[in-house]
Amino acid sequence: MKLADLGFTDGINEIIAITFSKDGKVNTAPIGIIVEDADSKFAKARLYHSHTRRNVETGSKLWVNIIYDPIVWTISAFEDLSEDWFESLNPPIIRGSLAWCEFECEKVKDDNPAGFKLKLIDGAILRKELRTVNRGFNALIEALVHATRYIMNRDSSLLRKIDECRSIVEKCGSRREKKALKILLDHIR
Amino acid sequence: MKLADLGFTDGINEIIAITFSKDGKVNTAPIGIIVEDADSKFAKARLYHSHTRRNVETGSKLWVNIIYDPIVWTISAFEDLSEDWFESLNPPIIRGSLAWCEFECEKVKDDNPAGFKLKLIDGAILRKELRTVNRGFNALIEALVHATRYIMNRDSSLLRKIDECRSIVEKCGSRREKKALKILLDHIR
Repeated sequence: MKLADLGFTDGINEIIAITFSKDGKVNTAPIGIIVEDADSKFAKARLYHSHTRRNVETGSKLWVNIIYDPIVWTISAFEDLSEDWFESLNPPIIRGSLAWCEFECEKVKDDNPAGFKLKLIDGAILRKELRTVNRGFNALIEALVHATRYIMNRDSSLLRKIDECRSIVEKCGSRREKKALKILLDHIR
Repeated sequence: MKLADLGFTDGINEIIAITFSKDGKVNTAPIGIIVEDADSKFAKARLYHSHTRRNVETGSKLWVNIIYDPIVWTISAFEDLSEDWFESLNPPIIRGSLAWCEFECEKVKDDNPAGFKLKLIDGAILRKELRTVNRGFNALIEALVHATRYIMNRDSSLLRKIDECRSIVEKCGSRREKKALKILLDHIR
């Protein structure tokens, strides 16, 4: 099994990372998996101080779900999905996920962000779906990047970028992107 | 058959439109298909003066391909894909397309853009693929929207937006998005 079999390409693959704390609490967060060769099992991740990073540092495997539900992305960006959102916890699979993967993680640089070397050890495709390109979904993902940074540093220039994304979500998104946008805007108020 | 069966959702669905001129020349262009109810056959499109619009006005059906190849998107935005890019011309299917659809078009507003009412009359899923979210692909689509506007009006504020997209494509895209970006940048020079 190689990364390309599970939907990864070279470049940065945005996915939902799932980890577990020492006491078994599930954590979800969008992260980027950096791939040089999708025909291999090897990838990298850069993790800022976060629950994901702490869990991995204390021994959790890094699980990944590939999913296109804008509400899952939005809740995961700001807090954790509760167990009700999962169709399975072993392996952890959020309802509607297209695929899951399991990675072994090795910290190779202890900084902020820390560098991790990842090795794909298991995974499966659950379902495939057909979808047109939706600029509203794309703009929501972009707005989440800006919004999570804004919460960290309150850099007001990010608000202009979020507002540009907002207008695209409102114009092009489906009802589900618009609902996700409301959740996002509530978090930066 | 309803729109949702072919990957459409409510909101604006970005796809490659394919039309034929009176003398049989194939035309390709990215357009947005506006859907209120994906469980129906009915949609809308707004078309500025273009080959797509002229072909539809002179009797061409509107064919649609759902595809995620950034190079296909980029060439279609600025010029036409030659017949070599197609795996079939009847129905027109660009190599790598996930699905094709055929729409009947009726002009309901003669303006710029003109309004068209669309009815899905045929279509099929060809293949499904699994792909992670790629901010580079998304930014390329956004850059194409800005670049095609820029070519029309030379509004230099669009160059800033294109440059923001460029840096995301360079950071997050796969080799294919980066190659598409080069084609885009050559067109706005």
